[in-house]
Amino acid sequence: MVDLNEFHKLLEGLVSLKPEKLYAQDFLLTWEKSLEDLKTVLKVAQIIRFFRDNNVSPKVYDSGLAISIFRDKSTRTRFSYTSAADLLGLQVIDFDEKKTQIAHGETVRETMNMISFMTEVIGIRDDMFIGVGDAYMRQVGQALDDGFEHGVLPQRPTIINLQSDIDHPTQTMADLLHLVDYFGGLENLKGKKIAVTWAYSPSYGKPLSVPQGIIGLMTRLGMHVVLAHPEGYDLMPEVVDLAKNQAKLYDSKFEIVNSMDEAFRDADIIYPKSWAPFWVMQERTKLLKAGDEKGLEELEKQALAENAKHMDWVTDEKRVALTKDGKALYMHPLPADISGLNCEHGEVTNEIFERYRIQTYKQASWKPYAIASMILNSKFKDITAVVENIFASNQPRVKYSNF
Amino acid sequence: MVDLNEFHKLLEGLVSLKPEKLYAQDFLLTWEKSLEDLKTVLKVAQIIRFFRDNNVSPKVYDSGLAISIFRDKSTRTRFSYTSAADLLGLQVIDFDEKKTQIAHGETVRETMNMISFMTEVIGIRDDMFIGVGDAYMRQVGQALDDGFEHGVLPQRPTIINLQSDIDHPTQTMADLLHLVDYFGGLENLKGKKIAVTWAYSPSYGKPLSVPQGIIGLMTRLGMHVVLAHPEGYDLMPEVVDLAKNQAKLYDSKFEIVNSMDEAFRDADIIYPKSWAPFWVMQERTKLLKAGDEKGLEELEKQALAENAKHMDWVTDEKRVALTKDGKALYMHPLPADISGLNCEHGEVTNEIFERYRIQTYKQASWKPYAIASMILNSKFKDITAVVENIFASNQPRVKYSNF
Amino acid sequence: MVDLNEFHKLLEGLVSLKPEKLYAQDFLLTWEKSLEDLKTVLKVAQIIRFFRDNNVSPKVYDSGLAISIFRDKSTRTRFSYTSAADLLGLQVIDFDEKKTQIAHGETVRETMNMISFMTEVIGIRDDMFIGVGDAYMRQVGQALDDGFEHGVLPQRPTIINLQSDIDHPTQTMADLLHLVDYFGGLENLKGKKIAVTWAYSPSYGKPLSVPQGIIGLMTRLGMHVVLAHPEGYDLMPEVVDLAKNQAKLYDSKFEIVNSMDEAFRDADIIYPKSWAPFWVMQERTKLLKAGDEKGLEELEKQALAENAKHMDWVTDEKRVALTKDGKALYMHPLPADISGLNCEHGEVTNEIFERYRIQTYKQASWKPYAIASMILNSKFKDITAVVENIFASNQPRVKYSNF
Repeated sequence: MVDLNEFHKLLEGLVSLKPEKLYAQDFLLTWEKSLEDLKTVLKVAQIIRFFRDNNVSPKVYDSGLAISIFRDKSTRTRFSYTSAADLLGLQVIDFDEKKTQIAHGETVRETMNMISFMTEVIGIRDDMFIGVGDAYMRQVGQALDDGFEHGVLPQRPTIINLQSDIDHPTQTMADLLHLVDYFGGLENLKGKKIAVTWAYSPSYGKPLSVPQGIIGLMTRLGMHVVLAHPEGYDLMPEVVDLAKNQAKLYDSKFEIVNSMDEAFRDADIIYPKSWAPFWVMQERTKLLKAGDEKGLEELEKQALAENAKHMDWVTDEKRVALTKDGKALYMHPLPADISGLNCEHGEVTNEIFERYRIQTYKQASWKPYAIASMILNSKFKDITAVVENIFASNQPRVKYSNF
Repeated sequence: MVDLNEFHKLLEGLVSLKPEKLYAQDFLLTWEKSLEDLKTVLKVAQIIRFFRDNNVSPKVYDSGLAISIFRDKSTRTRFSYTSAADLLGLQVIDFDEKKTQIAHGETVRETMNMISFMTEVIGIRDDMFIGVGDAYMRQVGQALDDGFEHGVLPQRPTIINLQSDIDHPTQTMADLLHLVDYFGGLENLKGKKIAVTWAYSPSYGKPLSVPQGIIGLMTRLGMHVVLAHPEGYDLMPEVVDLAKNQAKLYDSKFEIVNSMDEAFRDADIIYPKSWAPFWVMQERTKLLKAGDEKGLEELEKQALAENAKHMDWVTDEKRVALTKDGKALYMHPLPADISGLNCEHGEVTNEIFERYRIQTYKQASWKPYAIASMILNSKFKDITAVVENIFASNQPRVKYSNF
Repeated sequence: MVDLNEFHKLLEGLVSLKPEKLYAQDFLLTWEKSLEDLKTVLKVAQIIRFFRDNNVSPKVYDSGLAISIFRDKSTRTRFSYTSAADLLGLQVIDFDEKKTQIAHGETVRETMNMISFMTEVIGIRDDMFIGVGDAYMRQVGQALDDGFEHGVLPQRPTIINLQSDIDHPTQTMADLLHLVDYFGGLENLKGKKIAVTWAYSPSYGKPLSVPQGIIGLMTRLGMHVVLAHPEGYDLMPEVVDLAKNQAKLYDSKFEIVNSMDEAFRDADIIYPKSWAPFWVMQERTKLLKAGDEKGLEELEKQALAENAKHMDWVTDEKRVALTKDGKALYMHPLPADISGLNCEHGEVTNEIFERYRIQTYKQASWKPYAIASMILNSKFKDITAVVENIFASNQPRVKYSNF
């Protein structure tokens, strides 16, 4: 029943790769990983999906915890993380800061050791404040290093960034898996034009991590990456600079324009999504720290008024017609603000969204596999041997599945 | 140690059944299932209980999620669902709408796909509002159908109704398992009189799903079903009509009376429980939608005043004496309002409740098995082969249990 | 790879022990257990740690629930309990009283049966009110006995005290495991001086269970136990009397002094920790029951003012210098109030805490093993046979761990 040829083809792609910074490493930013690392994550994600589709259980743990720390709301990432951990045999437990003694003066250094005696992985979402999320994850990492080195922890839990202020690697790697699937291979992405554009939304304060993550990843793949936004809606300058440099290094093209039409023109892929300007996010972080309620209200009013000037940044029939053969692949991390469905004026018209809806769901469907791959790659040095052994063990995920 | 004869007797009963609407189906209302379907669920529940009692593990999943969505409070159903899912090998994760992006404009269509990439079953309680709960479950079902058909989901999660506005099938099937156990067989229920009666409670707004579920199920078993309530405390008319029609079709008897004494007279089984009148539940739903706080207060006052007129609808020594030999089996889904224990005047006197307390606990004890059976029957077509294989595998639930 | 000699040495220590009150018993107070019981718990905890360190999975359950009930906040105990249950194969589910029908008039007697149909262990923290926590755990135990005896429950879940008003046995047994590890054997603790002393804290109302648990345990080990606190900061008189009596019975020494210096002098171990005076905890419980908000505020003010008089009860360089060779082992259940780190004036200076920080983390690291041992000992009569079989089964916790 299992297609041996398909498995061997997937395996062949894996054998030739030489990952450098996956084993015993956290996964915080895609650009901290080598290209071979990223290709390894993609390949192993595809293999895990192949396993599950063929009822082969990739359960490698007989016990162990996977902790999640969500400092912001989450639906799909929460369930993707849970699914990935469960698939590998880990029990998921949410670390709810309200139910703990954090307020009691406990330090991050201490807490992270206290919860990690039998913990294999810690997934963290901390995306609300500029300068906070990524820094927090690194602080957690240092605490875990300290505990592991001093013999407090029998294993060093792997940290998976489930969205920080800077990057959203489980999202962008899932996006990339979808693109590889859609275009029939990573090599087919070379030269393709992807438009990462701002879009109008009636809400405010959406994180920058997705557009940042996309330009930080796609500029390494030989793609033509166009970032488009109204004036003032800049991303973090460090990430924009990184994208520029990478474009040079990796034979890609990166440009910034202030026109959605220009970005869409002849694009193979469009990724329109709202975000708050960098300066607004910075200001917001400051006001929040200062507890300046009135200032925050003012800022929101001002930001929404500014947003309202750009209500025409919407993905509609007319704009999609500008793309390559009028058929660019539309992408969104979801949930989207859909005009006439869940808001009056949003990021995309209902007509366009409905045309690509199933594609956006398929895009999302890769996230559990991306996460499972990140975990597995961090935990096992010889990943090829591991997947070969999983395959050979032929342990069914569902017993009696043929009945 | 395992009683082979008992297993073979249980298996024999199963082999002859021809379920029609269990495999690959949700379980929302018992009356959507054929009588053979229901008998199959009963038999498989008994077999799963036999397995657990004999330390045979019916774990069929090496991994997979069971999601619970509770839109109302729950103790026993929550733990029964968790126990059932765990017994089969699934990790339970509660979908807490507050922690998600639902408020962020996410649609049911989308959310349900996003949480289901590795999900085998979704249990839903939504029983507060007339016209809402059952409809919501069907909406979820359509979303999952859509995702499965379009290749978004590798499996179609089964929806289990953990109490809707219309029916409470995990409760009533557990109740039926208890009756089968108590009276020594399903065939022994034929001709038995069951009194489903309203009872006074100091609280207000209790769901209709239990009495509705009971008259919707027991009228298919050749029983004499008497529904009793004060005037005005009607159930949903569709369900009452259904019970009437079923009584004719299935050689049962169904009558409605306005006297508790009349219902209890010569009853073999008494099932007295408070509920809100249908019109009150409808009115309440309207007022809640309109956000009419004052109207809601008025309605509560009015309903409680009406309730207070029927304080004599209590199960006490005198009334139980009216039943068959004064020894009818008392049933309750729990928790009960017990006069002198947790309220001044309730549904039942402490004396009577205490006499039947252990029986009501045993009644409840069947719920995990009813749910596990619903899941297993939905997931496997040849259920006989599956239980035979579980038995043959002889995997212990507790290792070293003889030490 | 596994050190057979080490395993056999651990096993030898176990074989000779004759536990009396572990199998089929709850674990509420260490002093309800025989000394052989406690030694058995220690030995099995060490063996489970040995198993995990050597990648041998002590999973004995193929399915089953471990319920946690936290009536007070918790970080390390929550994760220790979860880790222990997971290691043995149980799925952890938190019983959140807010999400249940408890408020609906449900009795403890009933609820505990309703959640226990497939439950192996219930861990409870209830430490806030004098006279409540331990009593509640025993009430739960009676409810479970009742259900088990009447055939409602197929197994009697074991209750583990995760901190009551009287004792904190998972903490003190973990502490003892740390001492055994640190001093190279239980027999080496004989004659050692341990200073259990009050310490100043800017907060108020900390439970008494840790100091009570320590004097209730260490006075059975031939140790020299000194309890030190300012006048008025008494512990529960029953526990103090118990410690006195035990000291006589078990060839230990127990004294109470009102000077931190005196307690520290020549101590081998120092355990300085803040707590509220017994009378304050009693008064607080009364006021809380009476709903006397104003009285509570008054009490807090009064208690903090009293605390402030004893700000010099701090563990600093000068005091540590008084201990045996200036090198006593510092212990704390964490989190500690650390002067200059998480408060201005606390229980210990940053300098001292930092010196012993890793030791306090190692102390905490024993808790999951202590809990797993308590569970296993309660569930299996022939514990030696069980650990021998686990070892022989050689089931890996992490598959492919050598890759």
